[in-house]
Amino acid sequence: MFIIGEKINATRKGIDAAIKAKDVSHIQEVAKAQEQEGAHSLDVNCGTVHASEEPEAMRWLVKIVQEVTQLPLCIDSANSEALAAGLDEHRGKPLINSISGETARYNSVLPLVKQYNAGVVALCNDDRGLPTTKEMALEVGDSLVNRLVKDGVPVDDIYLDPLVRTLATSPETVVDSLEVMRELSRRFPGLHFVSGLSNVSYGLPERRHLNRAFVVMSIACGLDAVIADPLDAQLIALMYASEALVNKDRFCMNYIGAYNNGKLKV
Amino acid sequence: MFIIGEKINATRKGIDAAIKAKDVSHIQEVAKAQEQEGAHSLDVNCGTVHASEEPEAMRWLVKIVQEVTQLPLCIDSANSEALAAGLDEHRGKPLINSISGETARYNSVLPLVKQYNAGVVALCNDDRGLPTTKEMALEVGDSLVNRLVKDGVPVDDIYLDPLVRTLATSPETVVDSLEVMRELSRRFPGLHFVSGLSNVSYGLPERRHLNRAFVVMSIACGLDAVIADPLDAQLIALMYASEALVNKDRFCMNYIGAYNNGKLKV
Repeated sequence: MFIIGEKINATRKGIDAAIKAKDVSHIQEVAKAQEQEGAHSLDVNCGTVHASEEPEAMRWLVKIVQEVTQLPLCIDSANSEALAAGLDEHRGKPLINSISGETARYNSVLPLVKQYNAGVVALCNDDRGLPTTKEMALEVGDSLVNRLVKDGVPVDDIYLDPLVRTLATSPETVVDSLEVMRELSRRFPGLHFVSGLSNVSYGLPERRHLNRAFVVMSIACGLDAVIADPLDAQLIALMYASEALVNKDRFCMNYIGAYNNGKLKV
Repeated sequence: MFIIGEKINATRKGIDAAIKAKDVSHIQEVAKAQEQEGAHSLDVNCGTVHASEEPEAMRWLVKIVQEVTQLPLCIDSANSEALAAGLDEHRGKPLINSISGETARYNSVLPLVKQYNAGVVALCNDDRGLPTTKEMALEVGDSLVNRLVKDGVPVDDIYLDPLVRTLATSPETVVDSLEVMRELSRRFPGLHFVSGLSNVSYGLPERRHLNRAFVVMSIACGLDAVIADPLDAQLIALMYASEALVNKDRFCMNYIGAYNNGKLKV
């Protein structure tokens, strides 16, 4: 499981304040804590600053985070100039969050993916908006992956996000997205699937249970990356267990390793 | 989700001792605790006494448990005489644990299922032993359900247990059993699936994570009953979350009800 730490995101109040105050040490502490708990990459998002300031803010954010960690970062912005600035500052192989089937976004982000030989989160939507049916999600995902591959992005660098809607208003969304992952993982061997965890449980109480169960079910259908809080110890333990259960952890070595490292004592 | 409390089982030391000492209050406390935490049925097993004494022990066990709970019991024995004694004592609609495709077991348990109009746990094995491949498990399960239905057992009274093997020695067992459940739930609308949780994680550390993740994945593939510990609050919360996620909990009413009853505060 590839864990992308979600915590350095300006939609979180503490991070927003730290970015605006240039509070280096707060952000670096959050980075180190996530690495210590087993994150493989760290998402960095500063989308709350004014668009004209976002490229420099992103450059600064990438710089200060990479001062305290060797982890690759997941440069997260809806603004391709901010992506470009973050990528220019980044050392190592970055992830870009995100491209999609929307024409403008595809055309502005694809050159960055290729220039930086980056991994890329590919959102399953296009100019028509979010898919409203399973069939449409399949079509959009299939077409987006095919287009990226034709444009020279290795399938192994693509992290498709099936864009789960909110369970409270779209009760069929999880069943649909599980089927989409199962089908697309059959069609594209080597394709990765990633998911953020906040949408699905939006508006419901004690959301962590829904988020955790969603990750477990998704792992059984091909999910191999998450953008999540690596400090959620129950979630991490369930992810190790899930990969062992679906035979993606040979001889349960990672599960047993996590046990030996004290990560299952929750 | 239909939760069958697993704790009144003579393979557990405290229960074994209580059965042998006729310690009524200990067993009744375990029964009440499981009902309080939301069990819908209680398994009762006294399989550690001598076979010749098991029928009377089972009769006693059913009697003392039903003194303190209105829940139906799941009469659990490999000995059809013990099943018969427990069923004779039981009031309400019982569950029988279990029948299987083994000729002798099928022939001795079927008459009890019919006589008592019981629900029945149907184990997916036959005279050849445990299925060693997914194809064989499908064949055995399909044949067992068809035979029960032909012999007059309503499909809604059948709880098929796909008999998951031990992950540590059969790494493909979970993937196989998930596919078996998916396929058989397509073939037999209304069929129930049940699973005990101990086998899959046998021999591995911190087994609760594996058991919980296994239940979540299984719910996504049709599992609607478990024989489990209703006092495992994390497990219960994940089961509520899972049924909501796969759209088996209309408007998330059960999930929200569990929240209102304080069952998600873990």
